[in-house]
Amino acid sequence: MTFTQKLYEIQNQKDSLLCIGLDVDLEKIPKFLLTHKNPVLEFNRQIIEATSDLVCAFKPNLAFYEALGEQGLVALRETLKFIPKNIISLGDGKRGDIGNTSERYAKSLFSDFGFDAITVNPYMGSDSVEPFIQSSDRGIFVLTLTSNPGSRDFQRLKVGSKPLYEKVAQATKKWNSNQNIGLVVGATHPKELQRIRRIVPDVPILIPGIGKQGGDLRSAVQYGCAKQGRLAIINASRSIIYASDGTDFAEAARIEAKKMLTEIRTFTKK
Amino acid sequence: MTFTQKLYEIQNQKDSLLCIGLDVDLEKIPKFLLTHKNPVLEFNRQIIEATSDLVCAFKPNLAFYEALGEQGLVALRETLKFIPKNIISLGDGKRGDIGNTSERYAKSLFSDFGFDAITVNPYMGSDSVEPFIQSSDRGIFVLTLTSNPGSRDFQRLKVGSKPLYEKVAQATKKWNSNQNIGLVVGATHPKELQRIRRIVPDVPILIPGIGKQGGDLRSAVQYGCAKQGRLAIINASRSIIYASDGTDFAEAARIEAKKMLTEIRTFTKK
Repeated sequence: MTFTQKLYEIQNQKDSLLCIGLDVDLEKIPKFLLTHKNPVLEFNRQIIEATSDLVCAFKPNLAFYEALGEQGLVALRETLKFIPKNIISLGDGKRGDIGNTSERYAKSLFSDFGFDAITVNPYMGSDSVEPFIQSSDRGIFVLTLTSNPGSRDFQRLKVGSKPLYEKVAQATKKWNSNQNIGLVVGATHPKELQRIRRIVPDVPILIPGIGKQGGDLRSAVQYGCAKQGRLAIINASRSIIYASDGTDFAEAARIEAKKMLTEIRTFTKK
Repeated sequence: MTFTQKLYEIQNQKDSLLCIGLDVDLEKIPKFLLTHKNPVLEFNRQIIEATSDLVCAFKPNLAFYEALGEQGLVALRETLKFIPKNIISLGDGKRGDIGNTSERYAKSLFSDFGFDAITVNPYMGSDSVEPFIQSSDRGIFVLTLTSNPGSRDFQRLKVGSKPLYEKVAQATKKWNSNQNIGLVVGATHPKELQRIRRIVPDVPILIPGIGKQGGDLRSAVQYGCAKQGRLAIINASRSIIYASDGTDFAEAARIEAKKMLTEIRTFTKK
């Protein structure tokens, strides 16, 4: 089964497009966890346990784990073991380098950590992406039009009559012979999301930028889904995982996740 | 002293533009080192000791350390302690993400590891770069025109009358109020290097791609140096560190490094 099929199956079975971003920060998790041996791991364990039935994916943001050194790596590795098999684990590290180096990142993230999918930066072109798409059961999400203000600096520049991000979307179509390439498109660009979905009618699109960053959920779901429905992954991080900083944090995260999932389901049914 | 000044001083004092890339791979280092507790660290220790007087910088490639898990992190952290203070430590990880995430990468690489400089991917624009340029004594090298074949996929696309990589070079000029931004331009593009050097006459340029990748050393030095001389960093990795796989590997690396430095000096003097 290809990565794209696997994602589709999971989303269908669970009727969920929701992904929870595990951007876990020692300064933001409940204080009472700090006495734990590995507070980040304990935080993740409880968040995952409380929300697993609601999501299609969990997305640890690698920077937050690297910032904790060796303890962060341990937390990340052990966190992945808590993620049930019928949920996509998505390593958000935005990697990309010359071939022999991307190979090393692929080894680390796919073979050692065991991520189902990762995010990849396309700036260095095809040979920097290739080592990540060798196994059809592991997926990548190529940065296309990101949710942040800086997306206008280069991604929106016009190349001939088309913006650079459309060129990126088009290139991924050529590379996608293993049916395991998706895109990252920020929810902060609803019109462009709609246009990009027309270019790639049947690949996964990871959509961050809901919540703190200001993206609109309805358009993310309606424009982001593939022709056959599904394949949009709606990510929320801080608004869910930091819903409470008390001992009820996992329960509060579940309530937020459930609220968001309910909304997503409303927008999925037309 | 800004990062750019610091680099200039070091290159001047040592009369060296040479950077050795520490892309260290368990499969390529001499077999006899594998009995060591941390073979990669021992390899680096000996390479650094044998070549320190010849270089302006050492550039560990983060992917190679990440691929070794926790042991790789330890090797990287301890390797940095072996690098003398009058040599730039350059963390090659090509990071870049939304602001709050780039902040984490900056913390990890500059504060925790203590790198003097790192490489950064510009695709996500100004706010993804900003957290890396806060301290004027720490530098970044922004991917502009990379040495690999895939550099033609997006970097060379024409935006109006100019290629995208020139737009990136121009943007870094605007961002450079702390005098700590340099560029990455592959030696495999000599003409373009010359053109880029005219756009940014006085910033550092990191030039990989000599050796295995086919870049020409003479043009890298002559086109890469700034108006006032220096500020080109000529990187070589595999051709130096894997010069021998016997017990003489460090000595063999020194011989290769010295040979390259002598050539660089010939081309520096006109």
